[in-house]
Amino acid sequence: MLEKIDLAKKADKDTFKQVMETEGARLGLLQRECKAAGIPVMIVFEGMGAAGKGVQINRLIQALDPRGFSVFATNSSNEEEQMRPFLWRYWIKTPAKGRIAIFDRSWYSIVQRDRFDRPDEKLDLEGAYQDILSFEKQLSDDGTVIIKLFLHISKEEQKKRFKKLDDSKGTSWRVNKQDWKRNKEYESYLKINEEMLENTDTEYAPWTIIESTDRDYAAMKIMTTVADRLAYALEKKGTSGVSKKKQEQAPAERFHNGVLSGIDLSKSLTKAQYKKELDELQKRLEKLHNELYRLRIPVVLGFEGWDAGGKGGAIKRLTSHLDPRGYQVNPTASPNDIEKVHHYLWRFWNNMPKAGHIAIFDRTWYGRVMVERIEGFCTEAEWKRAYQEINEMESHMANYGAVVLKFWLHIDKDEQERRFKERMENPAKQWKITDEDWRNREKWDLYEQAVDEMLVRTSTTYAPWIVVEGNSKYYARVKVLRTVVEALEAKIKEVKKQKN
Amino acid sequence: MLEKIDLAKKADKDTFKQVMETEGARLGLLQRECKAAGIPVMIVFEGMGAAGKGVQINRLIQALDPRGFSVFATNSSNEEEQMRPFLWRYWIKTPAKGRIAIFDRSWYSIVQRDRFDRPDEKLDLEGAYQDILSFEKQLSDDGTVIIKLFLHISKEEQKKRFKKLDDSKGTSWRVNKQDWKRNKEYESYLKINEEMLENTDTEYAPWTIIESTDRDYAAMKIMTTVADRLAYALEKKGTSGVSKKKQEQAPAERFHNGVLSGIDLSKSLTKAQYKKELDELQKRLEKLHNELYRLRIPVVLGFEGWDAGGKGGAIKRLTSHLDPRGYQVNPTASPNDIEKVHHYLWRFWNNMPKAGHIAIFDRTWYGRVMVERIEGFCTEAEWKRAYQEINEMESHMANYGAVVLKFWLHIDKDEQERRFKERMENPAKQWKITDEDWRNREKWDLYEQAVDEMLVRTSTTYAPWIVVEGNSKYYARVKVLRTVVEALEAKIKEVKKQKN
Repeated sequence: MLEKIDLAKKADKDTFKQVMETEGARLGLLQRECKAAGIPVMIVFEGMGAAGKGVQINRLIQALDPRGFSVFATNSSNEEEQMRPFLWRYWIKTPAKGRIAIFDRSWYSIVQRDRFDRPDEKLDLEGAYQDILSFEKQLSDDGTVIIKLFLHISKEEQKKRFKKLDDSKGTSWRVNKQDWKRNKEYESYLKINEEMLENTDTEYAPWTIIESTDRDYAAMKIMTTVADRLAYALEKKGTSGVSKKKQEQAPAERFHNGVLSGIDLSKSLTKAQYKKELDELQKRLEKLHNELYRLRIPVVLGFEGWDAGGKGGAIKRLTSHLDPRGYQVNPTASPNDIEKVHHYLWRFWNNMPKAGHIAIFDRTWYGRVMVERIEGFCTEAEWKRAYQEINEMESHMANYGAVVLKFWLHIDKDEQERRFKERMENPAKQWKITDEDWRNREKWDLYEQAVDEMLVRTSTTYAPWIVVEGNSKYYARVKVLRTVVEALEAKIKEVKKQKN
Repeated sequence: MLEKIDLAKKADKDTFKQVMETEGARLGLLQRECKAAGIPVMIVFEGMGAAGKGVQINRLIQALDPRGFSVFATNSSNEEEQMRPFLWRYWIKTPAKGRIAIFDRSWYSIVQRDRFDRPDEKLDLEGAYQDILSFEKQLSDDGTVIIKLFLHISKEEQKKRFKKLDDSKGTSWRVNKQDWKRNKEYESYLKINEEMLENTDTEYAPWTIIESTDRDYAAMKIMTTVADRLAYALEKKGTSGVSKKKQEQAPAERFHNGVLSGIDLSKSLTKAQYKKELDELQKRLEKLHNELYRLRIPVVLGFEGWDAGGKGGAIKRLTSHLDPRGYQVNPTASPNDIEKVHHYLWRFWNNMPKAGHIAIFDRTWYGRVMVERIEGFCTEAEWKRAYQEINEMESHMANYGAVVLKFWLHIDKDEQERRFKERMENPAKQWKITDEDWRNREKWDLYEQAVDEMLVRTSTTYAPWIVVEGNSKYYARVKVLRTVVEALEAKIKEVKKQKN
């Protein structure tokens, strides 16, 4: 979830001031309503060191009635706590109905900092995750709203902040050896955090990533996220005055994680480069295909992207040198009558590849969290649940030994218009463009937001999303091919190593 | 869940005939209603070999419209299936809306038969359980009713049946070496099945144990269980004509698993035996208490039982020789105002013992599935969910290294009456008896049923229930003490072994 986040987001002073004022007032109101409705609320602050948890907690509570919340700092466990299982100290701090408990670090320490800091300690990692999921599920089933915030900054930003703290006499105690170690080994610490987020991002207790380079931006996003979650809970309970005025767009959605906005679409290739690279990669892929078959490795390749983003062209270049007995392209249209009366994943399960085969999906199960979400073809609960369901399906394939890659073919709005017009003018391509394409185009912003959320919630270590810069078709096709080739080579190497 | 089941249950011919007729007719009706309501249904038959899965499936489907269901036998996987992850073959067979899919063995094979038959194969057991839980959760969230039946027979009964099959030319092919091995090593195979049931008994897809010694009894119980689950699903959807006539007691509850009915209450001790054993056990316990402290082992002892069952007396004998700094007795009354605004497990979490200490609970968290269930203090969804929640809490303690034991102090109705009267006549004991006790007594049958279900669903390998034959107070107190002493000795031995 983390690596794709655009951390450069900033707030300008005016927006900041205005948002903090309106959202702060709304949050105060919502807190009172939650109290009246007897809803317990838990807010968890986790994140990278020096991302600003303390500052942000402080800003958030300015909007709250102090009689209604408690803040708990999770330091090293005291003697009482060490003598009990790790969830005990959090269970006894769970808020009463109508109260808010804010945690500065939390039950996640065991699978995050502790895991990194004390690698020698025997930790039943799977067991700890199970315990955490049960804990949150039990509380959520009982009506508790659980809001989990992950404050994220880059390695460089963190270094800068540590240095600043270290250099001043008054604050140098706040940075210790372990902090510096986590900065030096940022990449491996990031991976531990990725895993944590993947394993515990659930419908009942989802994570929100807070881009924390700019403190004002982070504060705005936190404030609106908390307010929105409370409004949603009140709405579900059917008791809110505030949330009854249903908004077109929930405020927090204005602060969604950007992935697409950070993509550099100017990347391109000349025709000569393209031909050369394409040829070389296709030949490598051809050989790899034989090895896949021999080693019985299944491969799942999903293609999504803007209309006219170039999915078809990329798939064509990918398959042109492959033995047709070894792969299958599955186009995904609207579900037919048989498919409609089954679980939405059923038709994709039907087309999962055999060991040694490649299954290519031209549009995929991600329709659930894009078109179905936006057009209202499924309920809000259904698409919110889908992120976890999809991760579970992909994880099942990956655990079986499959390579799972998902491509988002990205172009900008101007490029799409150019391509649409070209299609309309070209008799051979007219069939590719429909009125629906133009209608979808009008919903570009809604889609961008849904896609951003999808990329963040479902890009996993075992089934990553690859955003393909698609304004240049040459560049895009080569990037897709190269990514597939490299992923297959890595997997084949791994499998061979295991066999020896 | 299995070891406590009373397998001797039998049906008489008249009841059998009558139940099969009325329940069969009801099931046919419910099938049509489920079809109209678009509810998909999955029925899983698992169990011990030769428990009669084939026969029972055949009897069940007599009541169904053959156009509305399919039966799938799970044999060894074919080539197509071997080349895909294990859930694939079941995903593609999930029923369409309104249809019933019946599985003769199922996705449980991997954690049950396969695990036993092929111990050398590397199996990611935790992963497989996770995949199974996700699979069932995803389908259930989508509206599928999942009914899981476990057909249970004893080692002796199984041996008899295998022998009979083996002796006849026409059927000897049905018993192979592996079957005999599973019979010879019945106990260890049983343990694998226990674990499977513990790990996968959820609110959304609960197991029902079918006592299958008597085939007619089993058939009746299966028929009513399936009918009840469909009626419940229709009721939740608010679409049923049949289930609208809300019954006082769902039919399947008449066939609940019996544990208490099989208990031999004639067990007793003479006063001389009692004194001698008590003295010896208390001295052993005293010594063990010191070792617990030294080795930092926490101990959780829960006491439940009929009113006047002798909980107080047993706890008194247990603690009389213990160092009061090392244990705490927590009486559980109705929740107070603070406790009421928290999760029902919160107050018990607060009293969980420190490492090295003993926490004794006089009445426990099991109130949720007894008095709260029967008196309607919580919703049906809440107490149904509680079995899993309680198992999770106890498992968290056990994983931390705690000894967790739960005692049910059992007496019969006559003995209770005798004790109630004695209390009323004895001025020193009058405070112990209230009008509420007499009122609860009137609900004996409802309680017995709830207790039976509780004992089955929450007696786990890591936190077993011990049913204590309590008509003789002497016998009961000694049994409690002996059980605690032996469990502690075993745990201390285990911990010492790990340390060396």
